[in-house]
Amino acid sequence: MRNGKLIWTLDSQQIRSPQGFLAAAAAAGIRKTEGRLDVGLVFSSRPSIGAARFTTNVVKAAPLLICRRNLEDSGGEIRALIVNSGNANACTGKGGLQAANQMAALAAAILGISLQQVLVASTGVIGVALPIDRIENQAATLKSKLSPDGLDDVAKAIMTTDTVKKVCSAESTLGGVPVRISGMTKGAGMIHPRMATTLGFVLTDVMITRTLLEDALGQACEKSYNRISVDGDTSTNDTLAIIANGASGAPLIDEKDGHYTHFLEGLTSVCQNLAQQIVRDGEGARKFVEIVVQGASTEAEATQIARSIANSPLVKTAIAGEDPNWGRILCAAGYSGVQFDPNRVHICIDELQVCQNGTGLAFDERVAKQILSQRDIRILLNMNMGQAVSTMWTCDLTKEYIHINADYRT
Amino acid sequence: MRNGKLIWTLDSQQIRSPQGFLAAAAAAGIRKTEGRLDVGLVFSSRPSIGAARFTTNVVKAAPLLICRRNLEDSGGEIRALIVNSGNANACTGKGGLQAANQMAALAAAILGISLQQVLVASTGVIGVALPIDRIENQAATLKSKLSPDGLDDVAKAIMTTDTVKKVCSAESTLGGVPVRISGMTKGAGMIHPRMATTLGFVLTDVMITRTLLEDALGQACEKSYNRISVDGDTSTNDTLAIIANGASGAPLIDEKDGHYTHFLEGLTSVCQNLAQQIVRDGEGARKFVEIVVQGASTEAEATQIARSIANSPLVKTAIAGEDPNWGRILCAAGYSGVQFDPNRVHICIDELQVCQNGTGLAFDERVAKQILSQRDIRILLNMNMGQAVSTMWTCDLTKEYIHINADYRT
Repeated sequence: MRNGKLIWTLDSQQIRSPQGFLAAAAAAGIRKTEGRLDVGLVFSSRPSIGAARFTTNVVKAAPLLICRRNLEDSGGEIRALIVNSGNANACTGKGGLQAANQMAALAAAILGISLQQVLVASTGVIGVALPIDRIENQAATLKSKLSPDGLDDVAKAIMTTDTVKKVCSAESTLGGVPVRISGMTKGAGMIHPRMATTLGFVLTDVMITRTLLEDALGQACEKSYNRISVDGDTSTNDTLAIIANGASGAPLIDEKDGHYTHFLEGLTSVCQNLAQQIVRDGEGARKFVEIVVQGASTEAEATQIARSIANSPLVKTAIAGEDPNWGRILCAAGYSGVQFDPNRVHICIDELQVCQNGTGLAFDERVAKQILSQRDIRILLNMNMGQAVSTMWTCDLTKEYIHINADYRT
Repeated sequence: MRNGKLIWTLDSQQIRSPQGFLAAAAAAGIRKTEGRLDVGLVFSSRPSIGAARFTTNVVKAAPLLICRRNLEDSGGEIRALIVNSGNANACTGKGGLQAANQMAALAAAILGISLQQVLVASTGVIGVALPIDRIENQAATLKSKLSPDGLDDVAKAIMTTDTVKKVCSAESTLGGVPVRISGMTKGAGMIHPRMATTLGFVLTDVMITRTLLEDALGQACEKSYNRISVDGDTSTNDTLAIIANGASGAPLIDEKDGHYTHFLEGLTSVCQNLAQQIVRDGEGARKFVEIVVQGASTEAEATQIARSIANSPLVKTAIAGEDPNWGRILCAAGYSGVQFDPNRVHICIDELQVCQNGTGLAFDERVAKQILSQRDIRILLNMNMGQAVSTMWTCDLTKEYIHINADYRT
């Protein structure tokens, strides 16, 4: 409670399991590094519902197609999630679909549920057949390791070029009953979600109807995963999934009341925290950049301008070089597709105003350098057109990005 | 003549002046490197007409606004062009407009023509006031150096991060009379033209009406400058201008007949050659990549898919790393916004087919490596939807791009 308002307490260091979930991970040998965790299983021990958002890429990986089918066939009664890293199972044809289905079947057999109640996800290299037998070989291990403390291992198992695992747990109460929303996610390249991103899994012991869960996930996703960019590439595998099992005993959320709003706030906070962790660990990233566009005519236009800046290689390299080259920021706004009057735009880098009415201000280069030497940087544009605001989060573009991606496959 | 068809002979080593043009360049001290040519002047010694295409960026540099006004006020009777490098005169407010106007006035005074007959162009850093006095100080030098051999110096004066000067001359006949189309251009970053690009100047001694000159420039631009990408950033200063003075004595082109078609072919060849030179010298580029999308429903969709691939940092870094990671190519096609069936797509890298019906083929990695070790690489996608084809040209993305752009301004 703060000023009489219920708040969510966030922890992005560890993933605390909501009630009624079990999880386990194993090393199936799909990743190049031997002995590395690369397959994970999450299970709700009681009836639960699930919802998911997928990539808008026309090329969708096999596991996404299986998820879509299972969500439909089960009427949203999702109980489990199986995931692997090291292979995206994308562009793998009919064999890929079969492999993704086998993954679901494997989880169902281990857990004693139906195949339609399982979500499947994969991440890694595109266009290489998934060695499903290696995953199947881990059935006994996964089954024996299932525990309420297993989520941390799953968060490790979904990492690819990530340098740190990304988790977030939020705690609050609903109707006086303690509840949790906990999530994990992975980056770190091919990050430019249009609908969902990369892999993100959120679990909660809140009880909510399927319709409202889908609605909340969509809204949270729009203000989190859809507002980050590492490199402008929208993956074939982007999936953000949530499972809610009601194990907390908190009252059912079945209408858009105060409880729904509170849950949506918590979910949005968890998703934003996870999404921002992806940017902070963007491939080669050394800086975290928040781009705020205010004074736009509509939120959609504000987002479009912010996105254009967040994707500009020239802006991102300037930030890597700690160069206050604000002309590139205004230039990127200019080709965003939004019509505006450049002569009304103000630009600030943190507290330092560098541009007024589209024209450069004399500013102290040393102050600019000092601001840009920080790890977290905020760029603020005021379009002076209207009242709408939007925020995007991105990172700088460094030589390490090239290094990581030029030699990814070989 | 080849098989009875008139052809254009191209030379991209030197710029041969069409008849009736004079040019000069000087070192005004706008560029950081002392003594470097950074201001150029081109003059048609007889009445001529001009046309130009400008950036689609909402933020347009001051010289573009002056050009647009002058083209209108003179009814297209353009006689001269003055250009500087080292400063883009963009985001410079009213002072910038005044400076661009002073540049036009300076050229007019040197050449004894009206201010409205001058095109003005600038390239370099954004947001810094143009030191117009330094250009004015070169008036006597520019006037005294004007000569038919001066174009080569102007081509050098417009270079910024370019490592080589970019010129092209085309020769043929029209109605039996020898004619020339000669151009120069500059790169090498902030290259993602949507309408014109960067700076490109073309001169010809062909005689043509203003309407047809504008039409031909638009068509040539669409198939050349609008089909290249270095980094996806559309500049504030992109300008492609042409001046035609009829000095060859060839018959006037005043309808869309065979002469017009022949001229358009020559102009398109020169513009394509210049645009490809920009990509070859893209910032940090080591490889030239031609992306051909065939079997699309429409040419616009083919271009949209090719553009998405040409802009993908992951495709471009894979090529830098000589990694046949075709999954990234299909992925980039997938988020282009064009609807297609991934299961019908074939992909070839040069002669090597790597993907059939959206699924990877077993291919010899050594052969792939050998192909990707070449300087020129061709990526071919067959969408198997229709008959339309389009081509884009791009380069790889290397650590040197980051190096050049992280430290550009300081």
